[in-house]
Amino acid sequence: MEKNQESIIIDSIAVNKIITKIGLNRVMDDLIAELEEAIKNYNKEETEVPIRSGFNYKKPFLGLVEWMPIMKKGEEVLIKVVGYHPENPDIFKLPTILSTISSYDAHTGHLNYLVDGVLLTALRTGASSAVASKLMAKPNSKTLGIIGCGAQSITQIHAICRLFPIEEILIYDIDQSCMNSIADRIAPINLGISPKASHISEIMELSDIICTATSIAPEKGPLFSEFKSKPHLHINAVGADFPGKFELPKSLLEKAFVCPDFLDQAVIEGECQQLNKSDIGSSWDELIHDEDLKKNYQSGISVFDSTGWALEDQVVARLFANYAEDLNLGTKMNIESFSSDEKNPYGTIHQLINVSE
Amino acid sequence: MEKNQESIIIDSIAVNKIITKIGLNRVMDDLIAELEEAIKNYNKEETEVPIRSGFNYKKPFLGLVEWMPIMKKGEEVLIKVVGYHPENPDIFKLPTILSTISSYDAHTGHLNYLVDGVLLTALRTGASSAVASKLMAKPNSKTLGIIGCGAQSITQIHAICRLFPIEEILIYDIDQSCMNSIADRIAPINLGISPKASHISEIMELSDIICTATSIAPEKGPLFSEFKSKPHLHINAVGADFPGKFELPKSLLEKAFVCPDFLDQAVIEGECQQLNKSDIGSSWDELIHDEDLKKNYQSGISVFDSTGWALEDQVVARLFANYAEDLNLGTKMNIESFSSDEKNPYGTIHQLINVSE
Repeated sequence: MEKNQESIIIDSIAVNKIITKIGLNRVMDDLIAELEEAIKNYNKEETEVPIRSGFNYKKPFLGLVEWMPIMKKGEEVLIKVVGYHPENPDIFKLPTILSTISSYDAHTGHLNYLVDGVLLTALRTGASSAVASKLMAKPNSKTLGIIGCGAQSITQIHAICRLFPIEEILIYDIDQSCMNSIADRIAPINLGISPKASHISEIMELSDIICTATSIAPEKGPLFSEFKSKPHLHINAVGADFPGKFELPKSLLEKAFVCPDFLDQAVIEGECQQLNKSDIGSSWDELIHDEDLKKNYQSGISVFDSTGWALEDQVVARLFANYAEDLNLGTKMNIESFSSDEKNPYGTIHQLINVSE
Repeated sequence: MEKNQESIIIDSIAVNKIITKIGLNRVMDDLIAELEEAIKNYNKEETEVPIRSGFNYKKPFLGLVEWMPIMKKGEEVLIKVVGYHPENPDIFKLPTILSTISSYDAHTGHLNYLVDGVLLTALRTGASSAVASKLMAKPNSKTLGIIGCGAQSITQIHAICRLFPIEEILIYDIDQSCMNSIADRIAPINLGISPKASHISEIMELSDIICTATSIAPEKGPLFSEFKSKPHLHINAVGADFPGKFELPKSLLEKAFVCPDFLDQAVIEGECQQLNKSDIGSSWDELIHDEDLKKNYQSGISVFDSTGWALEDQVVARLFANYAEDLNLGTKMNIESFSSDEKNPYGTIHQLINVSE
């Protein structure tokens, strides 16, 4: 049996060609469908997802680099490495989240492919909120609230608008220029809706679905303190992903069904940090199988505690790897250095010397 | 401040061009010197090295994929991903160890470079044994014993011969053809020594320095049971790197100074699994500063328990990244997908659409 020795690098150029050829809406629709399917089929016996770990630091700039591994047994080990550095935009003109995703063959250890994780993380985080909203939000939700208008907000808007008949988008950011620029940034989605600058209290009052995706500093949350109850609201809480970092007030969480993407991680770095385990609802991979519970959620106050789950990365990475294969995009390289004699680390050098002699 | 957005892929072609241009001996000499320096300068306050973790499995084939992270604070996060699959050579004609090494900027999370980890792991594992032997073996060691003649043995021989006046090499492997082929495989090193087929008992008796690098299965060790004591012997025990896997008999370890590369890991997957903590000597980063202790080691029986330490990977990866930069080798790519507007994940797509209109 001979295994492929090539690795495919799906770089930013390939990713953009893929999206241009497939179309941004179809990519998002495919991703939402694949993700929903993967969550339905998720089985702990077949797929291992350890809690991510990493290095975090406060100097010279606040940040972390962490790795999120997942193994589909007998198939694939996927590792996303993700940096979260909230000062990146101001200091380096780089996105807050920088990331790459690598897929390894679980038979041999071979690197199958390496793909951009920046756009892919934004896409899958949006798709995750859409899938969670489909489980918990009112099906005919019409008003979408966005708190935090940075990079993640764009895919939140895109994904939610693919599944719900959104007519109005209310936005808020502490940075006025960031709020002003969102219309230009969502232009490629062609929604035909002009986002309306608003305030947190108005967003809380008028929205059916809210996405919070801010860079509020650890220990500085929540984003607001008062919560006036209402018959229905679903919040996708995307920003909390760091010990001490959270966006929503405890008083709101205590009134809501709180559904984490990945319980063990959410209690460390998500909104669930603020709750006792007994106050946390089912995870979304459980909820997706429970029709009665979904109906309950859809007629009350619910929060999706989105800290990022490696299964989402596996779905989006595989989707792009499949597109790349279908479209013959990406760069094939032999990265691992070995010769036809697998017992000879210097075999290739010998070959080169022979060639040059 | 603007940061570089490119990543450099140092693939097998670049690695081989580097070695052909620099010369195999100078690469090994540079690596041994850099590694010795890095171990001397190692400081827990500046460099964090968590124990590696990973997925291991018995089906469909015995193996593991693990990640070995290291952070030089404020500079670099390096992650080696390494697969160990002892059935790779027989089933897939691939090396037992497949690996890639990625370096990330600890300011931003950006992928600096990705480099082959197969040849680099073999090189650094050889260099590590040379550095350890310099600390513990008799300086004028003349006879080198090799138990296990697979891929790792080649760089063990190479590295040890760069530091010691080796006149005779005794070899043993359970696979006769593997023993027979070693002369061809070490040909690029131009040692002028023909390795002599031998047996474990003879190797133990006659060698000054021994390197064990076998794929003995977990729970099947040790490689031999009897050990006749002698005035001096240094063993580099390279093979043990898996819970339950070890090569040397406990009776030998108990008579020896045992020096682990990385204590916390060696007690889980190295020869040190067999010992109480009180029977384990200093780690090599401590030993390197202790002249008296080194003299003791050099006149007795010593074992270097080499399980693999991420600092070694950092040294070899940086060495090759520096060579690549000096020689203008490697492929520069923009892997992370982001636009000039760091708040707009769809910015690049928008650009492409504009271009095509």
